[in-house]
Amino acid sequence: MPGNSFGRRFVVTTFGESHGPALGVVIDGVPPGLVLDLDAMRAELARRRPGQSTLGTARKEGDEPEVQSGLFEGRTLGTPLCITFRNDDTKSADYDNLRDTYRPSHADYTYDARFGLRDHRGGGRSSARETVGRVAAGAVARQVLAAEGIEVLAWVSRVANEAGRDVDPETITRAQVDAHAVRCPDAEAAGRMEAAIRAARAEGDTVGGVIHGVARGLPPGLGSPVFDKIEADLARAMLSIPAAKGFESGSGYAGTYLRGSAHNDPFVPGERGPVTTTNHSGGVQGGITNGMPVTWTVAFKPVATIFHEQDTVNRAGQAVKLRPRGRHDPCVLPRAVAIVEAMACLVLVDHWLERLR
Amino acid sequence: MPGNSFGRRFVVTTFGESHGPALGVVIDGVPPGLVLDLDAMRAELARRRPGQSTLGTARKEGDEPEVQSGLFEGRTLGTPLCITFRNDDTKSADYDNLRDTYRPSHADYTYDARFGLRDHRGGGRSSARETVGRVAAGAVARQVLAAEGIEVLAWVSRVANEAGRDVDPETITRAQVDAHAVRCPDAEAAGRMEAAIRAARAEGDTVGGVIHGVARGLPPGLGSPVFDKIEADLARAMLSIPAAKGFESGSGYAGTYLRGSAHNDPFVPGERGPVTTTNHSGGVQGGITNGMPVTWTVAFKPVATIFHEQDTVNRAGQAVKLRPRGRHDPCVLPRAVAIVEAMACLVLVDHWLERLR
Amino acid sequence: MPGNSFGRRFVVTTFGESHGPALGVVIDGVPPGLVLDLDAMRAELARRRPGQSTLGTARKEGDEPEVQSGLFEGRTLGTPLCITFRNDDTKSADYDNLRDTYRPSHADYTYDARFGLRDHRGGGRSSARETVGRVAAGAVARQVLAAEGIEVLAWVSRVANEAGRDVDPETITRAQVDAHAVRCPDAEAAGRMEAAIRAARAEGDTVGGVIHGVARGLPPGLGSPVFDKIEADLARAMLSIPAAKGFESGSGYAGTYLRGSAHNDPFVPGERGPVTTTNHSGGVQGGITNGMPVTWTVAFKPVATIFHEQDTVNRAGQAVKLRPRGRHDPCVLPRAVAIVEAMACLVLVDHWLERLR
Amino acid sequence: MPGNSFGRRFVVTTFGESHGPALGVVIDGVPPGLVLDLDAMRAELARRRPGQSTLGTARKEGDEPEVQSGLFEGRTLGTPLCITFRNDDTKSADYDNLRDTYRPSHADYTYDARFGLRDHRGGGRSSARETVGRVAAGAVARQVLAAEGIEVLAWVSRVANEAGRDVDPETITRAQVDAHAVRCPDAEAAGRMEAAIRAARAEGDTVGGVIHGVARGLPPGLGSPVFDKIEADLARAMLSIPAAKGFESGSGYAGTYLRGSAHNDPFVPGERGPVTTTNHSGGVQGGITNGMPVTWTVAFKPVATIFHEQDTVNRAGQAVKLRPRGRHDPCVLPRAVAIVEAMACLVLVDHWLERLR
Repeated sequence: MPGNSFGRRFVVTTFGESHGPALGVVIDGVPPGLVLDLDAMRAELARRRPGQSTLGTARKEGDEPEVQSGLFEGRTLGTPLCITFRNDDTKSADYDNLRDTYRPSHADYTYDARFGLRDHRGGGRSSARETVGRVAAGAVARQVLAAEGIEVLAWVSRVANEAGRDVDPETITRAQVDAHAVRCPDAEAAGRMEAAIRAARAEGDTVGGVIHGVARGLPPGLGSPVFDKIEADLARAMLSIPAAKGFESGSGYAGTYLRGSAHNDPFVPGERGPVTTTNHSGGVQGGITNGMPVTWTVAFKPVATIFHEQDTVNRAGQAVKLRPRGRHDPCVLPRAVAIVEAMACLVLVDHWLERLR
Repeated sequence: MPGNSFGRRFVVTTFGESHGPALGVVIDGVPPGLVLDLDAMRAELARRRPGQSTLGTARKEGDEPEVQSGLFEGRTLGTPLCITFRNDDTKSADYDNLRDTYRPSHADYTYDARFGLRDHRGGGRSSARETVGRVAAGAVARQVLAAEGIEVLAWVSRVANEAGRDVDPETITRAQVDAHAVRCPDAEAAGRMEAAIRAARAEGDTVGGVIHGVARGLPPGLGSPVFDKIEADLARAMLSIPAAKGFESGSGYAGTYLRGSAHNDPFVPGERGPVTTTNHSGGVQGGITNGMPVTWTVAFKPVATIFHEQDTVNRAGQAVKLRPRGRHDPCVLPRAVAIVEAMACLVLVDHWLERLR
Repeated sequence: MPGNSFGRRFVVTTFGESHGPALGVVIDGVPPGLVLDLDAMRAELARRRPGQSTLGTARKEGDEPEVQSGLFEGRTLGTPLCITFRNDDTKSADYDNLRDTYRPSHADYTYDARFGLRDHRGGGRSSARETVGRVAAGAVARQVLAAEGIEVLAWVSRVANEAGRDVDPETITRAQVDAHAVRCPDAEAAGRMEAAIRAARAEGDTVGGVIHGVARGLPPGLGSPVFDKIEADLARAMLSIPAAKGFESGSGYAGTYLRGSAHNDPFVPGERGPVTTTNHSGGVQGGITNGMPVTWTVAFKPVATIFHEQDTVNRAGQAVKLRPRGRHDPCVLPRAVAIVEAMACLVLVDHWLERLR
Repeated sequence: MPGNSFGRRFVVTTFGESHGPALGVVIDGVPPGLVLDLDAMRAELARRRPGQSTLGTARKEGDEPEVQSGLFEGRTLGTPLCITFRNDDTKSADYDNLRDTYRPSHADYTYDARFGLRDHRGGGRSSARETVGRVAAGAVARQVLAAEGIEVLAWVSRVANEAGRDVDPETITRAQVDAHAVRCPDAEAAGRMEAAIRAARAEGDTVGGVIHGVARGLPPGLGSPVFDKIEADLARAMLSIPAAKGFESGSGYAGTYLRGSAHNDPFVPGERGPVTTTNHSGGVQGGITNGMPVTWTVAFKPVATIFHEQDTVNRAGQAVKLRPRGRHDPCVLPRAVAIVEAMACLVLVDHWLERLR
């Protein structure tokens, strides 16, 4: 597949440019007979939407999902679900200065190198707007998983230098995460994070940070050796999100400082099979779930669109100065929480469907 | 594909258990007409082999590659290359105590949960011995890449708390890496790392750490949006390696502390197209190479096999004590360098072949 | 992939039910920079459309293609091309009697067996309307192939007992094919075929027949042993068309009566490499093109919708009588010519793109 | 995948050239815990083996299967099963005259066109010897299917002009098929077929013919619209067999002469759901099984290796005369029965595993 599909059993294909007629997603492999909750999907989309709070861009996106196929009398047919999103509020003229100029640390130059041409308006295919289809697909996956008692949750754990306290992945709730616009469940840290974001914005700058995620209720035995490990698929999923630059499973980089005797997770008998007394493994051993919560983190770089004059080159290869216009987020993390969750749902539903084989 | 294949154009399928008759790899998609350098392949395999130095296990593995197909008069035919490795030095009786007992932080329990049975001898399919086929395939990929001026190199940058000095990814050489048994090019740090490994071994314990990698000579334009990004594929490749728990592309987690204005990589005109004056992006923007070196790191946890008595459970669900026997590495990083390089070669040759479309 | 995608390099995914909001296709892998000729696409769609002549159904379908993505200033971006078709003229009430009754030799019962539910209106996903997306995708593929001097052509060679004279696959033209509503280039036979179709319709019955196809201008060397043979992919493509029940490559079933000495195609030197003096092989040897025209046939059964009372069963498993209503073709072959060509274009463009590796 | 793999859930990858060190197959996706019956596999391989009777070639092939992986204490592990076959009786010198000469209607020229080089000894990768791995894999698939009450059977229905009487696909047995060396269950016709084969051989010539197949015991609901139809997958599978030139599902080409009213299969209530009173559909409607026997045919051309002097060209493009040497079958159909059955088993087990999702 040439790059726009994800998954093996629950296959998600996204399409669309940020300023084309529409974007969307086709999902092939949705289990039949599911009563699709479109309001729940809208709620997920609202968490991803720009302009949710004063922390982010003022840009509004039309993201009302239009289900074109695969649904009949409210139930999934087992045939491809196509969901489209029209592009409305697209101020394409804002981008005229980017037709021939490559923005630093954007995909402008690399798309030209790959394809020989690009839609320069709003990032075209490389725009984070592409993820609207992922979140819609993730909402479908989430409903399949929820019926099996599996839930997926993510939250902002650090913005720039402002870190939240450790969160118990077994008990954290979405209500706690969404209590603050920045989607950090630690109220005090959320305040510091918001201040950091506002400070960056005031200076025309941007900040990055880290998101933590957890999946709970997974049975042991999900995942396939040796290349389709849960962690490998999660890593690919997370690094496919715009601006993602790192991934950790379980103890991640911190665990590399420990000795094996401290890092190993002892098994003890549990009610429904073995459980571990610690979870450095992040719920995965040998690429397969062990029944403990699956935990991971994702690093997001500061987004590249800043309102400073920058050095760059144009298509003719000449040095030029660039000062971006348009509407952009100083920090994507609060919105990226919805995308991280969606991608995790896609990975897990795929392995879930494979398990039932 | 049910988990044992990697790649889309250069498709690598590994097979084999550590104590079965043989392990191996089938590579479909090898360009025809390549004069295959088997000695170069043997050299890569030697870097992965246990028992290279007194740092590692005394176990010897038969890893003479036997090419069964796809080669005629020294050249690749464009048909599948099958390479097998016989299992010789397999002391299976060493593992009898593991038939019904789950080692903590190994894949014993999870394989049982997935498949309902397992080959308990030496880890079976979850053994790191499986990677012998990956390294053989990586050696073929490396030869394809080398013909295009592309080289891939990795090194140990930290073991437990012992970190090496920063290395210039543009100039580091394999000779520098292999100058020390621990495969850290910084002589002073290498000494500290080796001491840490010997100390852990003396206590029947293990240590983890970090490997850095670089690919040089890549043209701009490799990689496919939106899911087959170079970084996403590298992340999946790296997290599929046994004991890997983290991945960073370019600036990774450290970059999340920077503001966009500091993190962005300014473009300037170069001899063969735009170049960047910094490389926080790690050579990839929007998932596509920009012509700068592609850089990444991988975190490896301390390996799970320690020679301490540990709490665990057996297949019957009862609490038991376990003290592993057998021969094991106190630190996999020096050998994992070869695996990290091999997996990177597989990712890059795949994208290279896709580019030629 | 769960069944709705075709191709490896030029990946076509169709979606949509005949009476849902819209149908369409996503094409991933379209070469970038192609100036897409939408009028040429409309012309292909017009050849597939119901109601073209008095031979077919009076049903009209809205098949104006709406390009949602992948196109910028008239050129393909190399990103997914999504093309949708709205469903307008859908008299769903015509199908109310089919909600609980299985039409003989339709997919009603088998969809229920597969999915547990179905959209009974107009056949839902099993409707031939699904092929509108295939024809649109085929039109894109055809433009890629045409730029390489490759052309694909099909025609009706037999309807029921009425056969046309042999056609020279090297010289036949689309103008000759389209000169008659039945799409048989033999005028006399076309008259007999049309009479057979009208006779069947007058009796509320249907007829089948055979379509021949040819691809010209293919270079030698397209196709991949051993499973992705050109013939194997063509066979799959053709048998995926609704109502197709047979496929022949080159000499097909007739060739099985010959001895090898009569069937073998002698090579002689040609201007641009070897050519054969006969073409029983149908341009393919060992699954790979030899530079001669690729030829094949497809058998189409008489369509299942007849206006006779028939015995069948309902969802409750009871015997019932059924007399279909609605608007249907007495013979699909004239329209199926466009679908046969489209699917052949999809197979060939895939192998063409693979060749450029 | 670049051509040497078949299947989505039960993925079969074959490798090997006829005169290389070994051939074989890797099967990924074998259900775990299956007690593998290797003697049953040997029996299938014996039916494919050259030199079974005086009808075929005197060439003997070493086809003792060596299981390299995926099996532990007699049970499948759910990990890849690799089975190899050593090449022993390879008289490579017999083929020296083919190094630079293209045999008519073989794959010699087309492999050169595809790959730029080839192993000319015994056909290399294009040799029918490649199918030994398919038959081994088919034997594994057959065991999975047998446990579900599904059986697959094929027989020779015509050789050149000698046709057998119609066979009842519901009751035909393997014993009846194997009662005659030619594998036609009609004794009288078997005699005529054998005479035709011996006559062709006496004249250094070859004959083709038709094989019929049936799968019984399939539940309704196997198969996936719209491209992964059972018939489409069977067609691809059959056309991937060397020398196959045609495929029919159910009524095939003969059914195209019927009207819909005669061709439709009326449903009547059955003990375990609807059944049809006729089976023109060949057990498949809309690409999905309806619970009736799945039936098909395959056309095999006369094999290309004849012992007559033939016109051809060499690699330099010059006209030359060729008279093949070596050992070859005058008719592949008796042996091809085993290959047809194996490929059908691969298709059906794939859909069976998909159904359990």
